[in-house]
Amino acid sequence: MHGGLIEQGGWFTCSFLIMITIALPKGALLQDSIDLFLQIGLDFRAFLDSSNRQLQITEPTQRATAMLVRAQDVPVYVEYGQAQLGIVGYDVLEEKSPQVAQLADLKFGGCRLSVAVPQESPYRRSVELPPHGRVASKFVQCARNYFRQLDLPVEIIPLYGSVELGPITGMSEAIVDLVSTGRTLKENGLVEIDVLFESTAYLIAHPLSYRLNPEGLGEWVQKLRENALCN
Amino acid sequence: MHGGLIEQGGWFTCSFLIMITIALPKGALLQDSIDLFLQIGLDFRAFLDSSNRQLQITEPTQRATAMLVRAQDVPVYVEYGQAQLGIVGYDVLEEKSPQVAQLADLKFGGCRLSVAVPQESPYRRSVELPPHGRVASKFVQCARNYFRQLDLPVEIIPLYGSVELGPITGMSEAIVDLVSTGRTLKENGLVEIDVLFESTAYLIAHPLSYRLNPEGLGEWVQKLRENALCN
Repeated sequence: MHGGLIEQGGWFTCSFLIMITIALPKGALLQDSIDLFLQIGLDFRAFLDSSNRQLQITEPTQRATAMLVRAQDVPVYVEYGQAQLGIVGYDVLEEKSPQVAQLADLKFGGCRLSVAVPQESPYRRSVELPPHGRVASKFVQCARNYFRQLDLPVEIIPLYGSVELGPITGMSEAIVDLVSTGRTLKENGLVEIDVLFESTAYLIAHPLSYRLNPEGLGEWVQKLRENALCN
Repeated sequence: MHGGLIEQGGWFTCSFLIMITIALPKGALLQDSIDLFLQIGLDFRAFLDSSNRQLQITEPTQRATAMLVRAQDVPVYVEYGQAQLGIVGYDVLEEKSPQVAQLADLKFGGCRLSVAVPQESPYRRSVELPPHGRVASKFVQCARNYFRQLDLPVEIIPLYGSVELGPITGMSEAIVDLVSTGRTLKENGLVEIDVLFESTAYLIAHPLSYRLNPEGLGEWVQKLRENALCN
């Protein structure tokens, strides 16, 4: 049904002109995201070219445009309807609570949001952390909700990077951070003591676009779901 | 008075053992920050070595330790007293309003926080932007305060990177972003229409540490001020 002339009640509409727009995340999820779209016939490999400076590309068959943005910005572009589809880590969805439709767990990019403390620390579970202690994190909302549920009052110190420096410099007793291989924790003498949640890449959509199904969005989503399950 | 035995009321104190800790920002301000400290005899050039993975180093004369952190995290480490001194852009201080002492304008790293719109846009001053229009920015607080002062209600869309995509994708009428050479704006067909403020690198200190002047902090600050003025 794509890429041709379709008769609708006497009108011919050219579906060549209708393109979907997809927001792809820079960083760890990009390669797998591009591989997934390639499996359903949409080629955004130009983003992987290290000489590429473009932030928006239309794939060769002219059926879709993708924009390359920071992982945290993917839900923003989808929420405002600038992209109909997006791929983003579940961790970002949990932290930002954007108004987007979560369509499918794509099963790649697995990691977990964990509590970690220095190896020499006496704490081996989150609930053992001292009341009114300090926890450094990039995931301020997730960390706050987690310790609230534990009924443990802690001070969350918001950091943008190198969260492991929190305990190393003595600024915080613990951190809440994403862990995939665990290498960074190990290199910095930290151990994981609890897991807030597991995270993988999610397919998200602009809720209204998806409900009204323009541009055959539902069809693309179905294909992405099928391919994600096969991986 | 540094690095020797000092008699104080019959006690000998060894000032060798007392080190100051400095938070240095990754990115655009790092080279000039390291040059400035080098001028007053503290060598943190190891951070410039591309093979370096350490986030904390003690300089060769053992008088100071520096930690290398994200620019936005510098005031956090200084506020919590993990670093007594820090160097950070005035833009970060304006956005985050941290509880730190602003000791000196170091005069380097000059840039400005500006409002920009697409070249073809009809708006040539911030006040001409449509009420309830959208402005994308990484500087959410600064942008909000600015438009509030103009008495112009706008929606601030918080982004983490590539803010110029806001107007390009049609998500926002304008952006508020840092401009140094103006190259990124030009490449993306945007023009600056107003300046919120000029920004340069600032020397900041933990207020209490600075007031109590332990570790001869005041002396280091004086040297840094003198050298910053000479540049």
